[in-house]
Amino acid sequence: MNKLLIVGTVAFDAIETPFGKTDKILGGAGTYIGLSASHFNLKSAIVSVVGDDFPQEYLDLLKAKNIDLSGLEVVQGGKTFFWSGRYHNDLNSRDTLDTQLNVLADFQPKVPADFKNAEVVMLGNLHPLVQSSVLDQMEVKPKLVVLDTMNFWMDCALPELLDVMKRVDVITINDEEARQLSGEYSLVKAAAKIHTMGPKYVVIKKGEHGALLFNNSQVFFAPALPLEEVFDPTGAGDTFAGGFAGFITQSENISFDNMKNAIIYGSNLASFCVEKFGTERMEKLQKEEVSARLQQFKALTQFDIALEN
Amino acid sequence: MNKLLIVGTVAFDAIETPFGKTDKILGGAGTYIGLSASHFNLKSAIVSVVGDDFPQEYLDLLKAKNIDLSGLEVVQGGKTFFWSGRYHNDLNSRDTLDTQLNVLADFQPKVPADFKNAEVVMLGNLHPLVQSSVLDQMEVKPKLVVLDTMNFWMDCALPELLDVMKRVDVITINDEEARQLSGEYSLVKAAAKIHTMGPKYVVIKKGEHGALLFNNSQVFFAPALPLEEVFDPTGAGDTFAGGFAGFITQSENISFDNMKNAIIYGSNLASFCVEKFGTERMEKLQKEEVSARLQQFKALTQFDIALEN
Repeated sequence: MNKLLIVGTVAFDAIETPFGKTDKILGGAGTYIGLSASHFNLKSAIVSVVGDDFPQEYLDLLKAKNIDLSGLEVVQGGKTFFWSGRYHNDLNSRDTLDTQLNVLADFQPKVPADFKNAEVVMLGNLHPLVQSSVLDQMEVKPKLVVLDTMNFWMDCALPELLDVMKRVDVITINDEEARQLSGEYSLVKAAAKIHTMGPKYVVIKKGEHGALLFNNSQVFFAPALPLEEVFDPTGAGDTFAGGFAGFITQSENISFDNMKNAIIYGSNLASFCVEKFGTERMEKLQKEEVSARLQQFKALTQFDIALEN
Repeated sequence: MNKLLIVGTVAFDAIETPFGKTDKILGGAGTYIGLSASHFNLKSAIVSVVGDDFPQEYLDLLKAKNIDLSGLEVVQGGKTFFWSGRYHNDLNSRDTLDTQLNVLADFQPKVPADFKNAEVVMLGNLHPLVQSSVLDQMEVKPKLVVLDTMNFWMDCALPELLDVMKRVDVITINDEEARQLSGEYSLVKAAAKIHTMGPKYVVIKKGEHGALLFNNSQVFFAPALPLEEVFDPTGAGDTFAGGFAGFITQSENISFDNMKNAIIYGSNLASFCVEKFGTERMEKLQKEEVSARLQQFKALTQFDIALEN
């Protein structure tokens, strides 16, 4: 079985949407990536940090998904990273109400010995220096490194972000971030410029409008599944990234054609994530549901035009 | 050869984009629909009205595309409908600077005798009473009637719009209009409600984010082709509708599967329209260019996941 090394936050979230609000619940990029990747045939580990306020039941939940937690540091007397946000009515934008870094402020990632030869590394959204530190600890060069990041690091740690970008194969960012990073409005031009910064593959996430995969002159598009109700978008991007990285890890095939499938798997898993608050839907998601919805993705996008027309 | 009857404006446009501005140039929904549909093997006619200020060269251009103009009334002493608009920097929104209805104010459409048995009728965006009047004049029930409309008629002529909607098979509107017409934010719910108003098929245009085709529980999505540069979005929606209606007319097949192909053809033709100001790109578009770009659409969207995974 191939190995997927995940670095990303394991956290508390408090979420408000037009449909309701939660108290502190399980959240964090590492959590969503791990839950999503657990749908594939692989060994995964999360490198992260929590405080001793982090409930045993959440640790048990992740372990029950066969996620190795030997790289999850528990800081005695420390408090777990907390994020709170409120979504606007269209669910496409949100305000951050509170961010408490807590134990994340001094986080020094430690890659478990057993994962220093992982085939795939998924660098969830964190300080670029933390992401670089994980790559420094690898003893065998991974077959594929995927980087997720956000506008915050473009504003506050751009040199460090540009450094880690040179070391990755795939970057996943949203459309506004691609525009900010490249200075180009056209996403085609933005992807071309981001290629020159390092990543051979550029994935641009457009939320409810789907995702684009660029590899120089090649481009592939996966729509988001049209849903009757989007309940809570929290974690959708991380679930997408976890599905993408998980599928690649399982298949051990980094061709562009296989990445198309990985993008579809990521979109498919993300379409479940948004159906309930937080991780609720992903915790209980069954293999049969995933397969059935993949059929929906096929029906949604596949056509058969005779091109000699 | 099957017949496509088109009703829609034939007009002057003056357009400003971040890339430049035009004087009065050829425009109008009927014009764009006609140019787009001319790429298919069919007989088409435009029912519309212009003033005697409308240049012979524009008439010659449409005739050279084999578009029957016997239903295009020329009002002596009248002035042609004029629209002027300015696009914002993102090209996704625009301000109307001037609208002069002129001869359109008293327009009474007259369907040419030879087209009263047209297999397909494309009702371009006009007052719903004008659209109804065209249907009243048909001597043979068309195999398919496609209706395009806009928020203006929802605000000013909703009862008349609801009347004509009961008589059509397909409606094409954009996402904001679908939300306004249905009162539903979710496009899945919006389409379901619009089905109950008449149209069995609901096409929701999302501009650079593609188009959705709904038929009760079935849904299909066509992306817009990611372009390096969008120069002028004017007429893209009408070009899409013309490609959709033209393909259906040629193939004489109104199955859902064939409508998927029609949506792809419409998206393909619209991707050319936006590359130059006004009708310029569509006037000179060659068959080989259309075929080559269809290949790009296939590469953009087709994947091959083994679903037993």
